[in-house]
Amino acid sequence: MSSTNLPPANLPKKHLFELPEGIIYLDGNSLGPLPKAVSSAVADCVEAQWGGQLIKGWNDCGWMEQPVRVGTQIASLIGAPSGSVVMGDTLSIKVFQALAAALDMRPDRNVIVSDSGNFPTDLYMAEGLMRLKGRDYRLETPEPDAVLDAINADVAAVMLTQVDYRTGRMHDMRATTQMAQEAGCVMIWDLAHSAGAIEVDLAGSNCEFAVGCTYKYLNGGPGAPAFIYVRPDLVKSVEPALAGWLGHAEPFAFDPSYRPALDIERMRVGTPPVLQMTALEAALSVWKDVYMSEVRSASLRLGDLFIAEVERRCDGLELVSPRDGGQRGSQVSFAFDHGYAAMQALIARGVIGDFRAPNIMRFGFTPLYVDDEDVLAAVDIFEDVIANRLWDHPDYQQRGNRVT
Amino acid sequence: MSSTNLPPANLPKKHLFELPEGIIYLDGNSLGPLPKAVSSAVADCVEAQWGGQLIKGWNDCGWMEQPVRVGTQIASLIGAPSGSVVMGDTLSIKVFQALAAALDMRPDRNVIVSDSGNFPTDLYMAEGLMRLKGRDYRLETPEPDAVLDAINADVAAVMLTQVDYRTGRMHDMRATTQMAQEAGCVMIWDLAHSAGAIEVDLAGSNCEFAVGCTYKYLNGGPGAPAFIYVRPDLVKSVEPALAGWLGHAEPFAFDPSYRPALDIERMRVGTPPVLQMTALEAALSVWKDVYMSEVRSASLRLGDLFIAEVERRCDGLELVSPRDGGQRGSQVSFAFDHGYAAMQALIARGVIGDFRAPNIMRFGFTPLYVDDEDVLAAVDIFEDVIANRLWDHPDYQQRGNRVT
Repeated sequence: MSSTNLPPANLPKKHLFELPEGIIYLDGNSLGPLPKAVSSAVADCVEAQWGGQLIKGWNDCGWMEQPVRVGTQIASLIGAPSGSVVMGDTLSIKVFQALAAALDMRPDRNVIVSDSGNFPTDLYMAEGLMRLKGRDYRLETPEPDAVLDAINADVAAVMLTQVDYRTGRMHDMRATTQMAQEAGCVMIWDLAHSAGAIEVDLAGSNCEFAVGCTYKYLNGGPGAPAFIYVRPDLVKSVEPALAGWLGHAEPFAFDPSYRPALDIERMRVGTPPVLQMTALEAALSVWKDVYMSEVRSASLRLGDLFIAEVERRCDGLELVSPRDGGQRGSQVSFAFDHGYAAMQALIARGVIGDFRAPNIMRFGFTPLYVDDEDVLAAVDIFEDVIANRLWDHPDYQQRGNRVT
Repeated sequence: MSSTNLPPANLPKKHLFELPEGIIYLDGNSLGPLPKAVSSAVADCVEAQWGGQLIKGWNDCGWMEQPVRVGTQIASLIGAPSGSVVMGDTLSIKVFQALAAALDMRPDRNVIVSDSGNFPTDLYMAEGLMRLKGRDYRLETPEPDAVLDAINADVAAVMLTQVDYRTGRMHDMRATTQMAQEAGCVMIWDLAHSAGAIEVDLAGSNCEFAVGCTYKYLNGGPGAPAFIYVRPDLVKSVEPALAGWLGHAEPFAFDPSYRPALDIERMRVGTPPVLQMTALEAALSVWKDVYMSEVRSASLRLGDLFIAEVERRCDGLELVSPRDGGQRGSQVSFAFDHGYAAMQALIARGVIGDFRAPNIMRFGFTPLYVDDEDVLAAVDIFEDVIANRLWDHPDYQQRGNRVT
């Protein structure tokens, strides 16, 4: 694929976002920008709902049902049926819930397979869960292209992030799930870098569980709630490990013993973060009349354009994302020895991407609000930074504990 | 104690809250009202920080440090040293973290003692944890006044909510902790109905762990984040069961293996809910130059006044809270056979309390924004509802899954 002069029919949706002047934002894969609909929705939630209705908000403002209502909207973006997705907590917690349920389903097996490209928190949460279980569980993390070889009859669960957070490399969801299930394993997909970026056919993949976050491509804001999907035929049998009261069949009966809800609500835990849920719910309005196929093809086109221009104009960078769009999520990553400093130099000049250790410069292509012109303008600045060694400046060297 | 004509020196702080006209709000024990400082803080977080700074907000707007920064403010309200409290997740999750750590500290013991008056989610989370551990753990829930008798050398952890959510009955934190520790148990306090309501001397109690929520007396808003306290001498040895990446010693090193932070940050899990944290941080500004001793004595005075007036003017109600203020948190509960309907009748007339099954009408006395005049006006309406059987109306009968 290559750049064309014909924009996609219905993109971008820049007019729906607050985008600061002078910024080219190529980090929507980390934190999506502010949709314009959010400010007034949050203000209304704070002032009219919380301020005006007080405790009655739980009954009269739809706060209690919001995690399922928003989950249903997310479901429609990831190929999942209504009622199979619920919101809450953080992605780490949702990983824990899914993995605990998966291990429960295969009590006779003791291996969890993930990969070395998974986001660390997924691996850490697995470590913590294994320690809790106090049995001889083992977590295996082969290289991404060796995952299929690691699947065998000892494996209880295969837990993978579909799109590698560093390289953008994609797993084949359907083929991997099929192979895992043929070996009797439970399949868990982390859609952190998929939801809102690529076409996900969750129901078609047949996986048992999926989880994801909503502050990246779904633009839900910093700390937006996570989601969990449970395959509908399993919902009634999954034993929630985090047995919180809002997952109870009758939370307001205040039973002394836990009895899970009969539907996806059993994956709820505690009191939902109403302000964050409201920001997310408003942010999802930008998806009205957007097709994910259109987002996907536009994103690949932008990524292809970026790769071609950077490789033509910037020396010393190595593409670490798959060149083939079919293998790549919606980000493009280049390895560069001075990657951290170079990213700081770009940010100082209004091009925002981010850096991932040890040497990866990461750029996200989110066609809801990024277009060809942005990509070309970003490469102009990138070329300047590289050709004129603008990264070689003391201000750009100190890393510390920074997100970008 | 009884009502006096002299108001406390520095209360109420009504002018710092948005209180709807015509409402007497006696449900701050469930959801605190909106502090005026919150709206602009949240709007700034959404528009200037998220909207204007995008991903840079994590570095430049203090989002990453916020859970510890706010935790330190909470610490000062509950008698805990700086650096011993961190915010995040929900109270259910924090209960799970504390209890998992406690069981880890007493691997040779197999009993958890709580009580029948604990809020159900604490018990449910314990059930879930025990199932995960896959050992012969047992949860005991004696009546509140029989807890001390249940403590023995089989008990790994004693986990209690200091103030009973239905009756307001208080446990003696210091004496109970001492007795638990003399028997070799780990002590966990849930401060859901304590923080911001009564004087808590967490450090003085010597308990190992404490947890709490911030949407009640701390007015953080619906779904505000929870907190966890770890006794400082234990922080370096507690093994986090929920081993999320933001509890890692170096989250942005993206290590494949978990290595907990050396301080309270190890109890962090995933990405913090920045909008909720910001609402909470702004809400805490109301505590400037307020002494908890002053809040406590004013609250007892209001509660005593309410008890005296209700008992004098309303027939057929039975006080289920301790009459002695020293045994009572900051709520007053009456049992009444038609309690649900009567509470709906009160709410319809502008007096907001809540109902807890099977027959408890619950009223919170929060002197930051409730005064004697409110109490007397509320009792006028209560008397009318009871004397004239205003509860006996079809609109007030249907309970369903309602919060009040």
